[in-house]
Amino acid sequence: MISTFEALAGQLADVGRHCYERGWALGTSGNFSAVVRSDPLTLAITSSGVDKGLLEPRHIVAIDEHGRVLQGSGTPSAEAALHLAIVRSRGAGAVLHTHSVWSTILSDANADGRLTIEGYEMLKGLEGVRTHAHRERLPIIENTQNWPAAVPRVEQTLRDHPEAHGFLIRGHGLYTWGNDLAEAKRQIEILEFLFEVMGRKRGMGWQP
Amino acid sequence: MISTFEALAGQLADVGRHCYERGWALGTSGNFSAVVRSDPLTLAITSSGVDKGLLEPRHIVAIDEHGRVLQGSGTPSAEAALHLAIVRSRGAGAVLHTHSVWSTILSDANADGRLTIEGYEMLKGLEGVRTHAHRERLPIIENTQNWPAAVPRVEQTLRDHPEAHGFLIRGHGLYTWGNDLAEAKRQIEILEFLFEVMGRKRGMGWQP
Amino acid sequence: MISTFEALAGQLADVGRHCYERGWALGTSGNFSAVVRSDPLTLAITSSGVDKGLLEPRHIVAIDEHGRVLQGSGTPSAEAALHLAIVRSRGAGAVLHTHSVWSTILSDANADGRLTIEGYEMLKGLEGVRTHAHRERLPIIENTQNWPAAVPRVEQTLRDHPEAHGFLIRGHGLYTWGNDLAEAKRQIEILEFLFEVMGRKRGMGWQP
Amino acid sequence: MISTFEALAGQLADVGRHCYERGWALGTSGNFSAVVRSDPLTLAITSSGVDKGLLEPRHIVAIDEHGRVLQGSGTPSAEAALHLAIVRSRGAGAVLHTHSVWSTILSDANADGRLTIEGYEMLKGLEGVRTHAHRERLPIIENTQNWPAAVPRVEQTLRDHPEAHGFLIRGHGLYTWGNDLAEAKRQIEILEFLFEVMGRKRGMGWQP
Repeated sequence: MISTFEALAGQLADVGRHCYERGWALGTSGNFSAVVRSDPLTLAITSSGVDKGLLEPRHIVAIDEHGRVLQGSGTPSAEAALHLAIVRSRGAGAVLHTHSVWSTILSDANADGRLTIEGYEMLKGLEGVRTHAHRERLPIIENTQNWPAAVPRVEQTLRDHPEAHGFLIRGHGLYTWGNDLAEAKRQIEILEFLFEVMGRKRGMGWQP
Repeated sequence: MISTFEALAGQLADVGRHCYERGWALGTSGNFSAVVRSDPLTLAITSSGVDKGLLEPRHIVAIDEHGRVLQGSGTPSAEAALHLAIVRSRGAGAVLHTHSVWSTILSDANADGRLTIEGYEMLKGLEGVRTHAHRERLPIIENTQNWPAAVPRVEQTLRDHPEAHGFLIRGHGLYTWGNDLAEAKRQIEILEFLFEVMGRKRGMGWQP
Repeated sequence: MISTFEALAGQLADVGRHCYERGWALGTSGNFSAVVRSDPLTLAITSSGVDKGLLEPRHIVAIDEHGRVLQGSGTPSAEAALHLAIVRSRGAGAVLHTHSVWSTILSDANADGRLTIEGYEMLKGLEGVRTHAHRERLPIIENTQNWPAAVPRVEQTLRDHPEAHGFLIRGHGLYTWGNDLAEAKRQIEILEFLFEVMGRKRGMGWQP
Repeated sequence: MISTFEALAGQLADVGRHCYERGWALGTSGNFSAVVRSDPLTLAITSSGVDKGLLEPRHIVAIDEHGRVLQGSGTPSAEAALHLAIVRSRGAGAVLHTHSVWSTILSDANADGRLTIEGYEMLKGLEGVRTHAHRERLPIIENTQNWPAAVPRVEQTLRDHPEAHGFLIRGHGLYTWGNDLAEAKRQIEILEFLFEVMGRKRGMGWQP
């Protein structure tokens, strides 16, 4: 397991710096995780308070299903409870959370609590999507500073949107996940691209 | 021929990563090809499903005029039929296909199935154009998930627009081509620049 | 002290080139400082007229509380008086001043002399902020070419806004500060991110 | 003289690739020159048709006051006549010409043939400007494909605007100049920054 954790820590640090470079995880924002072992669940996750432009493997800790640190030093992100909920609910192998300009803007734009994306070829970059005619519905969750208490609400949202590849938190950012880190990273890029298209169109008077 | 294929595979990988860096081929989007030999036709083309930020020469395969793999491992892009049609119709030596934010936006903006660009000095970066007074008309083709079946429609569009240096696919992106990869890459940059100018002007209330 | 000055000079040069790369300190714009010693006050600060893309440790000078050069060659920035005032008023360990497109735009947008930012998760990247519900009020100061004379006005503004993490100068840019350079750099990124979100929303007809 | 030419060729190649990276000289657009000797006038200038992302010192030629090649191989830019006119009229040591998105947009926005920029601190990055209250008036010249014939018109425009630090060509881009390359490069960055501020404000309904 140690070698797996170390390999994932390196990959998570790479993904984190990449997101920083793209402007999706400025300052200490964003957090990133990958499953080291399923049973018992062990999750490698970024520790709290690290500048993502300086993220190194030593900033990754391993936690158990209750969020307790098993390996590494540092405090796991306050949103670790969300990562664990997504892994449980979706069987994800990796969970990525970013704070981009466009996801922040669009998270605040839809009163009905959902962002619908439809008709774009880029949608085929989402796992299992085979056609641009796909309609992706991303739920928008209200922000909180108490994620452990909000976990039941997030789990219900995930059950209500079984097809969703991610969700937005209002005024906050994006969560997406995948079977592995490469898939989750690809989905971040796909969704950020589509957010930028929709945000810019809205600026022109189109409605997304 | 092998050395030519290997050289082109290296150049295609470079172009692909460059487009990824510019944000024109995020995730696994985009595909790129160059003619290895004209008779019988052999085309070097990106294989399907590769993250373009990680594109390497080993991700390029050689295919024949029917899209069958001659060299390398991997599945050619599902849009290989489009690349072959463009090579046949235009005598192109290289074909580049990108998914940018601005081409996606503009592909959806023109009900008459055409994007007209006129009066910009940058137009002179397109092969054979000698004056900014040039009027470039890029046809907009409807998107599909069955490109082999759509080839006759694309060929007809190319015949209907003998002067066009590229075309857009609605909600999808840009195709352009050139006598060689350098020319095709230059045209990608020229057209993407002009799309950004026109898209931003439209956001200001100008009409392109 | 010499080793501290040299270490800070290296870190200030890194921060300056980073801001240049992000487009926040183009040309010779922007200036950056860090406290070498508190008593008597010694401040490491960028010298005037240096292209921030080429900033090197040798472009940093040490000044005393009156702005007189103690170490290094070069003229301290004309805005050194502002840096010293902020260090005195806030007990800051580092002061960063950038000229970005969005801070320039937003500095001119609010007639009441204040930019209010509220409801964004990213606000938690500001020192001491624990919730997205935080309301950040950044005062906007009129621009001048005589900062030594304007120091009392700036000090009054800082007293009037004891909770503010920075201020804008109209048509000019942003000042922020922190206990150390890492904190001040993080706040630059947080505030620039929020400016971009608010500026783009305003372009869409939202009011910040 | 040879060593000067070689040094300037290296610096021009650096500036050209920098402008390419910033998106101000995509494809083969843009051209750049610096004075090697004043009497008789010898100008180092980019040769025509080179991808600015691949610009090397060997792509720079030396020309005389009539545009004849003195050193190096390649055809000087078709706009060499403009560079020579600016050197003569302004006594410039370096002339830079870029094609950016924002300069292209703003060149088309002002019916009265002039872009006025006023009230920004960044204006102080222009040579000799000491206050943000400076009013910069950049004339806008109509585009042509015959610059040798247009030289008298350009010279008249320069005489009519003795204080201008540059001019725009409609639908085409920016010319600026300086006593040396560093000054001209700084002015490119200053003016491009201000174009972006003004263009984005205009997109929001402000008038520049």
